[in-house]
Amino acid sequence: MADWAMPRVEDLQHADWERVLIHKLNNKTKPIGSLGQLERLALKIGLILGTDSPQLHHPQLVVFAADHGLAQNGVSAYPSDVTWQMVDNFLAGGAAVSVLARQHGIGLQVADCGVNHSFSPRQGLLDYKIARGTQDALIGPAMTPEQCYQALAHGADLVQGLPGNSLLLGEMGIGNTSAAALLMSRLLGLDITECTGAGTGLDAAALVRKTQVLQQVLDRHQAAQSPIDALAAMGGFEIATMVGAVLQAAAQRRVIVVDGFIASAAVLVAYKLQPWVVQRCVFAHQSGERGHALMLQILGAKPLLDWGMRLGEGSGAALAWPLLVSACAILNHMASFDSAGVARQVADQAHPHNHHASP
Amino acid sequence: MADWAMPRVEDLQHADWERVLIHKLNNKTKPIGSLGQLERLALKIGLILGTDSPQLHHPQLVVFAADHGLAQNGVSAYPSDVTWQMVDNFLAGGAAVSVLARQHGIGLQVADCGVNHSFSPRQGLLDYKIARGTQDALIGPAMTPEQCYQALAHGADLVQGLPGNSLLLGEMGIGNTSAAALLMSRLLGLDITECTGAGTGLDAAALVRKTQVLQQVLDRHQAAQSPIDALAAMGGFEIATMVGAVLQAAAQRRVIVVDGFIASAAVLVAYKLQPWVVQRCVFAHQSGERGHALMLQILGAKPLLDWGMRLGEGSGAALAWPLLVSACAILNHMASFDSAGVARQVADQAHPHNHHASP
Repeated sequence: MADWAMPRVEDLQHADWERVLIHKLNNKTKPIGSLGQLERLALKIGLILGTDSPQLHHPQLVVFAADHGLAQNGVSAYPSDVTWQMVDNFLAGGAAVSVLARQHGIGLQVADCGVNHSFSPRQGLLDYKIARGTQDALIGPAMTPEQCYQALAHGADLVQGLPGNSLLLGEMGIGNTSAAALLMSRLLGLDITECTGAGTGLDAAALVRKTQVLQQVLDRHQAAQSPIDALAAMGGFEIATMVGAVLQAAAQRRVIVVDGFIASAAVLVAYKLQPWVVQRCVFAHQSGERGHALMLQILGAKPLLDWGMRLGEGSGAALAWPLLVSACAILNHMASFDSAGVARQVADQAHPHNHHASP
Repeated sequence: MADWAMPRVEDLQHADWERVLIHKLNNKTKPIGSLGQLERLALKIGLILGTDSPQLHHPQLVVFAADHGLAQNGVSAYPSDVTWQMVDNFLAGGAAVSVLARQHGIGLQVADCGVNHSFSPRQGLLDYKIARGTQDALIGPAMTPEQCYQALAHGADLVQGLPGNSLLLGEMGIGNTSAAALLMSRLLGLDITECTGAGTGLDAAALVRKTQVLQQVLDRHQAAQSPIDALAAMGGFEIATMVGAVLQAAAQRRVIVVDGFIASAAVLVAYKLQPWVVQRCVFAHQSGERGHALMLQILGAKPLLDWGMRLGEGSGAALAWPLLVSACAILNHMASFDSAGVARQVADQAHPHNHHASP
C-alpha cells in the first residue's frame, strides 16, 4: 500500500473572515451587492486564503494525463494515441490550454499519470506514471487498490512541490468522460443515462453504445461502492491523481479552480471523502457535457462561465483565471465611500447606521 | 443644428472572412466546436476586424457621464451629486471600473457629456459637456434637437480621436436607468413595466413610484416616436453621446464592448438607426436590471457573463475584456492538427475529407 494519509480538510465557516470581508465589500464605492457574482467570488477567495486582502500569486495549472483501458470499447470519438500527442502539444505550447495559460502567466505542467507512451524527460513534464493506461473496466478493475493509493499519494506529492496559492485543474485522457460518468453515477446513485454525454464528439448512435458499455461496467463493479473502491474499479490514473491533488490543495487552503466534467468528477470523489473540499473550489465553467450541470448543482456550485465548452485540458480554468484576479483587485484596490468622498444612498444618509443592512 | 452626418454601417456578412475563419478554427487541435462560445467570439472579432489573425490593441474604455433632470422625481436611490463624485473617483483610480481597467491595461477616460458640476481640466477627463444635466422629461423634452445632434456629433468626434481598434462602453449618471427604460419602452413598443427595474438599489415601493413617473413621461412624449426624437425627448446627454460613439465606432469597424442596461439602450438607439451596428457589438454581461435580458434577446445577443451585476460604469466590459483577448489568442496561437501531429477523430481518419462537415 502506498504511503498516503488522507489530508484533513476543515470547515472554513468557523473563521471570522466572512464578516470582515462582507464589511469591506459593503464599504466600497458601489451600491451594496451591485458587483453580483464578482463580490461572491471575492468573498470566497478571501475565506479560502483567510485574509481580507487576498493576493493570488504564481498560479499553477496541472494537466493530469492518462490512458484508459475502457477506451478500446469505442466510448470515445478519438483514438487513444491522441492522449500522448496532446501531451506533446501542451508542452510545445500549441494547445488551447497552453495558449490561455501563456496569456495569463499561469505556470503549466503536465503530469503523466499513466499515458500509454514513453516520453523523454523534458521541461514541464512530471513523471507520475503508474502504468501505461488502466485495465479495461469492462473486464476487471481499472486499477488495483495499491495503484489507486499510489495515484492519490502522487497527487499529494505533486501539490506539495507547487509554488503559489492556487491549483488550476486540467486533464487529458481519451475515454475519461466515461470514467467520470461512472464515478458520478455510482457516488451519487444516479442512472448512467443522466451522467453520460457525447464527450468530445460522439454521434447519437455511438452515444447509445457508450451508455450500454458504461451500464455493463457498473453492473460488473456492483461491489465498488465507497469513493476509493469506485475510483479504483472504474476511475482513471489521471482522475485518482487529481483526487489526491485536490485533497492536498484543499488542506493547504489553495484556491482550486475546477473546469469541466472530469475535473468536477475528481472533486466529487474528494468531496465524498472530505466534504469541506468544495469550499476551496471555484467552478470556472459549466461544460456542454451532459451530466455536468447536474453534478454542479449537487456540489452547490454556480460556475463563472457557461460557454458550452467541452474540451477539457483545464481550458475553462485558464480562461476564467483573470476573473479571479479581478475579484481580488476589487477587494484590494477599490476606494471606500469615506476615502473617495462619495455620498451613500439617500436612505442611508438619513439613517447612516442602516447601510449595511440593505439587501 | 450641429454638424453630424449619420455614419453608414455596412453588413459584415458580405465579407468572405466567415468561411476563412471557420476553416481556421476547425483546423485547430481540438474537436470541432469544442471551445463553444470562445470560438463564436473569435469568429465575431475576426469578422469585425476583417482578418483571420485579429489583434486587439490599445483598448479604450470611455465612461460617458451626465446628469438627468428626471432624477429630481425620486427615480434613483442615490442623489445626483453622486454623478460628479463618481467621476472624481474614476479619475482617481478608486472605482470598480478604474481597478478593472488598470488590471487589463485598458485606457480609461471619462467624457463629461453633461454633469451638473464644474470640473477643473485634468488628465483623463474629456470635456463634451452640453449643459449641466438634462431638463426634467416629466415637464418637457430632456434636451432640444440641437443638443441631441450636438451630443451625437460629440460621440463621433470622441471616437475619431481614440487609438486602438475597440471601444468599451461605460456610463455614469444618476437616473439613467430611467432614461434607458424609457427608450427601450418607446423604441420596442413594450410596456414600461417590462423595462423598469430597481436601478442601483430602489426598494419595492420606490420601484412602483419610478414606474408611475416613467409612464407619465411616456404619455407626455407620445409624439417622440423616431429614434432621435425619443432620444431627445426622454434620453440623456451621456446616452446620446454614446449613440454617436457607437455609430462612429461601428463605421470604423471597432470591436464595441457593451455591458449593462444603459449602454445596451444606447446600442438599441444606434441599431434602430443602423441595424448592422450589432454585428460590431460584443455583449459582455447580462445585468441584474429588469429589462436587460429582454433587450439582449431582441438584439440577438448572448452575453459573455451572467453575474447579476448592476453597477454600470463599464465594469462588466472591463471585467470581460481578457475573454476577448483569449478568443484572439486561440485563433493566432493554437497549433493546427497538421502542425502538431495530432490525430483527428476516428471517423475523420476513415473519411479525411469529411472533417469540416462535423457538427
